[in-house]
Amino acid sequence: MSELRRDPIGGRWVIIDTDHPSLPKDYEYEPHILKGGTCPFCYGNETMTPPEIEAIRNHNTSANTPGWEVRVVPNKFPALKIEGDIDRRGLGIYDLSNGVGAHEVLIETPYHEKDIPDLLDKEVENFLSMYCRRSSDLKKDPRFKYIMIFKNYGAAAGASLEHPHTQIVALPMVPKNVMEEIKGAHHYFEFRERCVFCDILKQEAQEKERIILENKYFLSFCPFVSRFPFEIWIMPKKHQSYFCQTKGDELPQLASILRETISKFKAVFPNPSYNFIIHSSPIGEQEELEGYHWHIEFMPKLTRVAGFESGSGFYLVPTPPELAAKYLRGGKQA
Amino acid sequence: MSELRRDPIGGRWVIIDTDHPSLPKDYEYEPHILKGGTCPFCYGNETMTPPEIEAIRNHNTSANTPGWEVRVVPNKFPALKIEGDIDRRGLGIYDLSNGVGAHEVLIETPYHEKDIPDLLDKEVENFLSMYCRRSSDLKKDPRFKYIMIFKNYGAAAGASLEHPHTQIVALPMVPKNVMEEIKGAHHYFEFRERCVFCDILKQEAQEKERIILENKYFLSFCPFVSRFPFEIWIMPKKHQSYFCQTKGDELPQLASILRETISKFKAVFPNPSYNFIIHSSPIGEQEELEGYHWHIEFMPKLTRVAGFESGSGFYLVPTPPELAAKYLRGGKQA
Repeated sequence: MSELRRDPIGGRWVIIDTDHPSLPKDYEYEPHILKGGTCPFCYGNETMTPPEIEAIRNHNTSANTPGWEVRVVPNKFPALKIEGDIDRRGLGIYDLSNGVGAHEVLIETPYHEKDIPDLLDKEVENFLSMYCRRSSDLKKDPRFKYIMIFKNYGAAAGASLEHPHTQIVALPMVPKNVMEEIKGAHHYFEFRERCVFCDILKQEAQEKERIILENKYFLSFCPFVSRFPFEIWIMPKKHQSYFCQTKGDELPQLASILRETISKFKAVFPNPSYNFIIHSSPIGEQEELEGYHWHIEFMPKLTRVAGFESGSGFYLVPTPPELAAKYLRGGKQA
Repeated sequence: MSELRRDPIGGRWVIIDTDHPSLPKDYEYEPHILKGGTCPFCYGNETMTPPEIEAIRNHNTSANTPGWEVRVVPNKFPALKIEGDIDRRGLGIYDLSNGVGAHEVLIETPYHEKDIPDLLDKEVENFLSMYCRRSSDLKKDPRFKYIMIFKNYGAAAGASLEHPHTQIVALPMVPKNVMEEIKGAHHYFEFRERCVFCDILKQEAQEKERIILENKYFLSFCPFVSRFPFEIWIMPKKHQSYFCQTKGDELPQLASILRETISKFKAVFPNPSYNFIIHSSPIGEQEELEGYHWHIEFMPKLTRVAGFESGSGFYLVPTPPELAAKYLRGGKQA
């Protein structure tokens, strides 16, 4: 018998195949293999990108030359453009607006072939701190309502360039799924006077079977209501609704758990493609959301079904998260 | 400048690349190529499937032998099982239930290599009529709340068998996206006292630029707020909330527009993978939903991005639906 599980935040039901669960060896995923070639994100090719916005670089080097550790540039093919008014308007029954926003690319490391597990904790911390530097800058623009930070790694996950990078998009509206997550969490808070994410953390810490890693400030685990096999969430143990509230030694701890979690994942699936997204509160509501809790959602690309599932909102998960976490804790393919 | 568009039903914003739109030749999609081999859905292999539930077959042939035109069998690896109680229960803060439901496979034709455009209108009508025969049977079971009918065509779209087939799943709950669509449409109805889908039909008929085909009872068009490039909706022109309300010569007209629309699509993209889903009202609400309108959503698998978009709910559409419809009307690659 399979199991139907309901997401306590958004109310989505998913089908978990507890009956004939798929093991790691059953996934015939498209391996992510580096093809090489000229890369605009590598040392020495700085002029192949638009001029840099910000960088972490050696003191005696100038912008748009080598010597950087983390580099942020405008996306050469931006989905949204920084100039202009939003101009929300109607067209018959439809609503539209101009595609105004920011679309930046954060180059995580000068090393073309280094995925997050290949970096030092300090290097991961560097690019995470740049997420916040860019967020702080972008949120000053009154046209923007949300800053979306996400990484596509591997062609199967939608990356068009293989050099490790993160995309930062400032949007003039809050994306639907974020809004639903916030509304769902608010609804739970009204009912129970507790943050649903804090409750999830408590239950996961108690049941233990879905936990992958834990450190002083963070937990990484396979969520009870996963939508994708081997989906992983990384969440601060302390209630925080805005990603950039992380202070002091929290960011080093986040860098460490992110690196180690992906490392454990890659021990089970050696050449994967994956996405991760930072779910955080909208601009201007950073301090106010007592029922919302930022976290990172890591989604490996192990299966190819997408159109149907994203169209229907109905997910079939071939590996129960309890079993996925067991493999990931072990860190090797059985 | 790209354009942000807001879905009038669910309120989702998408980014349409009106600035540098992708043309059909720009899509490097994974071609769907038949590999052959022993197929459990072909003539003569009827015993390779579980015993048939229902079939359209020649009078002098018996069940589970050749001689059928359309054949419905239980899914050999069902996501949900027909026996047992749902047993909804809590587990700490989580909710779950047993995986009770029906999971059937409808084999559309005995011809392994025939996609919908290769069939006669009458053959398409036959399998569409079987959608309704199975729905009428399944909706008698009081445990079920929704019947989901969808087709995965091609491995890239999640099909594990290449012989043309549709899946019919009876669920003990209404899927999240369907529920949201109904709620959104209801909200619109309360505000305007008109069905949002009827309003869409009127505006599309007036503006014409997103229409692909039209016949007496149906319209096929690229929706103004597409989530996927070359997404197509087929909708009855008359208000109907339940798919199986189609009567008289409506079903032949549906068969015809479905076949011709996919045919036009395949003239532009010769070996595509695709999904389609029938969006219809839940069981027991067939007659009541004055604000809801059934339709078919056809989603070609031309791009590989999925994890990020289905995770965030934010879609980037490289080809504006107006341009997609122009190519599809022309029916050939430019």
